[in-house]
Amino acid sequence: MAAPYKTFTAEDLVQLRNICGVERVIAREDIGEDYCHDELSGTYRCPDVLVKAMSTAEVSAVMKYASTNNIPVTPRGSGTGLVGGAVAVFGGILLDLSGMNHFLELDEENMTLTLEPGVLLMEVSKFVEERGLFYPPDPGEKTATIGGNINTNAGGMRAVKYGVTRDYIRALEVVLPNGEILTLGGQVAKNSSGYSLKDLIAGSEGTLGIVTKATLRLLPLPKYKISLLVPFPDLPAAIKAVPQVIRASAVPTAVEFMEREVILAAEQFLARKFPDNSADAYLLLTFDGTGKLEVEKAWEEAADICLKCGAMDVFISATQERNEAIWSARGAFLEAIKGSTTEMDECDVVVPRRNVAEFVMYSHDLQKKHEIRIRSFGHAGDGNLHIYILRDELDEKSWKSKLAAVFDDLYHKAAELGGKVSGEHGIGFAKRPYLAESLSEAEKMIMCGIKHTFDPQNILNPGKVISL
Amino acid sequence: MAAPYKTFTAEDLVQLRNICGVERVIAREDIGEDYCHDELSGTYRCPDVLVKAMSTAEVSAVMKYASTNNIPVTPRGSGTGLVGGAVAVFGGILLDLSGMNHFLELDEENMTLTLEPGVLLMEVSKFVEERGLFYPPDPGEKTATIGGNINTNAGGMRAVKYGVTRDYIRALEVVLPNGEILTLGGQVAKNSSGYSLKDLIAGSEGTLGIVTKATLRLLPLPKYKISLLVPFPDLPAAIKAVPQVIRASAVPTAVEFMEREVILAAEQFLARKFPDNSADAYLLLTFDGTGKLEVEKAWEEAADICLKCGAMDVFISATQERNEAIWSARGAFLEAIKGSTTEMDECDVVVPRRNVAEFVMYSHDLQKKHEIRIRSFGHAGDGNLHIYILRDELDEKSWKSKLAAVFDDLYHKAAELGGKVSGEHGIGFAKRPYLAESLSEAEKMIMCGIKHTFDPQNILNPGKVISL
Repeated sequence: MAAPYKTFTAEDLVQLRNICGVERVIAREDIGEDYCHDELSGTYRCPDVLVKAMSTAEVSAVMKYASTNNIPVTPRGSGTGLVGGAVAVFGGILLDLSGMNHFLELDEENMTLTLEPGVLLMEVSKFVEERGLFYPPDPGEKTATIGGNINTNAGGMRAVKYGVTRDYIRALEVVLPNGEILTLGGQVAKNSSGYSLKDLIAGSEGTLGIVTKATLRLLPLPKYKISLLVPFPDLPAAIKAVPQVIRASAVPTAVEFMEREVILAAEQFLARKFPDNSADAYLLLTFDGTGKLEVEKAWEEAADICLKCGAMDVFISATQERNEAIWSARGAFLEAIKGSTTEMDECDVVVPRRNVAEFVMYSHDLQKKHEIRIRSFGHAGDGNLHIYILRDELDEKSWKSKLAAVFDDLYHKAAELGGKVSGEHGIGFAKRPYLAESLSEAEKMIMCGIKHTFDPQNILNPGKVISL
Repeated sequence: MAAPYKTFTAEDLVQLRNICGVERVIAREDIGEDYCHDELSGTYRCPDVLVKAMSTAEVSAVMKYASTNNIPVTPRGSGTGLVGGAVAVFGGILLDLSGMNHFLELDEENMTLTLEPGVLLMEVSKFVEERGLFYPPDPGEKTATIGGNINTNAGGMRAVKYGVTRDYIRALEVVLPNGEILTLGGQVAKNSSGYSLKDLIAGSEGTLGIVTKATLRLLPLPKYKISLLVPFPDLPAAIKAVPQVIRASAVPTAVEFMEREVILAAEQFLARKFPDNSADAYLLLTFDGTGKLEVEKAWEEAADICLKCGAMDVFISATQERNEAIWSARGAFLEAIKGSTTEMDECDVVVPRRNVAEFVMYSHDLQKKHEIRIRSFGHAGDGNLHIYILRDELDEKSWKSKLAAVFDDLYHKAAELGGKVSGEHGIGFAKRPYLAESLSEAEKMIMCGIKHTFDPQNILNPGKVISL
């Protein structure tokens, strides 16, 4: 891709090494291939230089240098993204924040945790849960950084009851493209003091500023948790039960759907049996709470509703062990599907809850129409679906053309059902055309105006989300 | 105030009447004095014309006309604001949206309510609660419109457990200053599809676009609710108990603090006794949930903590009647204080929870320093304080100068404690200097850039929040 930027030179390398030291500024020829792509999308480009920042001051100095010299900068966490958001599509500097991975302050009086962006999601949950606290957002990819979660406004399994990442961000420290450092929000639970830049940065995929510190809201850790695995004769029957379960007196923590073929793939991948694989479709429900009776009442009510809606059985999993068997299978779905084919790409649409079954059945039908394998799983409770299109043995040309045709169909169907292009994985590089198609001209103009306000030179993660 | 706008003429009146009809376009001389100010702030200016819009199409047509002719437009709900946000400080068109007050769709499958912006908050809660549903945000002013709540990102009593208005907005229909109509968000529970303009509009006080329709997220109505009124020997003792109560296993729905003198004012105002008025300071705690036992356990745990922290007693109020006696007193605080003086102004800061006592004690001390009466109450659980400065018998000059000196002290102290200018009432016209002082130059530039992106002519609610 042609770039309107300065060509990166040996002198730039020297200058960046003056800022961050020789060891953490890696020249192009020494950059590992892993830094040229992400976890899934076909987006591929090696950066001119890899800079491993260790502090806000370094990030600021790098941005000042980049902005003075018109060099593009792509921030990156652990590279688990699925849409090319952390790939340096214009080359330039890849700014690795995964070394900024320290917990800074646990404030139990304000129930907040302040940390650096490179802390992994699994480290966050471990840290707080050991202290009887709870950080509700629970995306499937536990090796993602919290910075990546903030930048995609990740949702995860528990969004049904607890909301998404944005809902738990109290404050952000952000380095602007020109190197200035902002602190947005604070240790406060309410704030109506001007435009909420904090809420705008959340979900902006590193295109407006670089998150270098975050303060997250915590809750007390729920004492009781139970999961139900509920087999249904088919997916529409399973999905039909969901609004009724959610409309009942207790909101479930999570409502996932899964189909047999994905479970079989996970069994094979993990070399471990799932508690049941006899039905075509399953709901996996979780309830949590502070009182045992309350949680029991909630799952009993939900079990009754499921049985009335045609469930074939209800498997209760109250033990830690059994819970983990189910949830580790759920957590392995992406890798299991990936392992079952040569290459794949995904569609992360979100549709209104009531349209989940229609959308998934539509994706099934596309398998015949386009002669390609499609697998899916996702969050039935919040309408966020993960649809995977598998390459298998297709040659490059057929794969590209089929993939484009399937994506076209999927995104059009989602729009028709009142859905959105991305529920939680973001737009990055790969989904830009679909986002552009879904927005009005006025929305695009405003988003471009906002981008221009933060980043007039278009040097921060250029080529992502929206085009300038 | 001098205005860079076209002078409003008789021809403009004719044209606006062509859009909305003669009866709903009221000429300056016929506009009631109520439309020249809001509920509290000293901001005063009569608009050139009052337009009572009844539809999105009308709002759009009015904005097109205004933008073509460079006429400022100030949107207004029921005028219950406290900072001059709905006062037409540059004259021009005051666009009254209170007639757009219809419920449009209750979607029980997606648990959402779609409605027009002029519906009053008390109508929203009545409508959903009659159907076993729950809209958690609960600001004290029940005659505010939902549009006003969205525009100030109102918080209210239940923010401790349930968060603020922004957290419940699924979708917004917004008319831009140029008359274009946007739909932001959707019937979806997650969304990572480009910059979240919806979250930016929330809390923007009608300066970026006019909200003409909103879709709100609902929850199941909690079945059990209990309030505790807890007397303490003094305010610091009361406030000290709060973090411990919140850190316990169940998050309280609300944690309000109140001092005796405010309770006495409310008793006088309502001509009705409060359950207890013997102590200097009180906490009012509420717990809600789906299970009786769970709620009982929660309040028992909280009561124990309060007693250990020096509470003199714990009054339990499980009956609807007693609950209402307490909460109606709490709801009357603002009016009661207002009724006890000739004029007043307020400060709506939010500070970290642990600093609430220090801030309130500081405001007490200011009474002596500035020889002026100051009263306060507020949300101990979320650090949002409402501090009222009372004019009593002061002459105009002393009042203005003392008020400015007290505000200076209060806002500086709040900043020193890590607080923000407004927790939920917004900035409007009256608090602009304090917001400006609290922001960095970079933040101001970005906010101005955002305003310019949405409203390049600066015709929509000009003179509010930030200055262009």
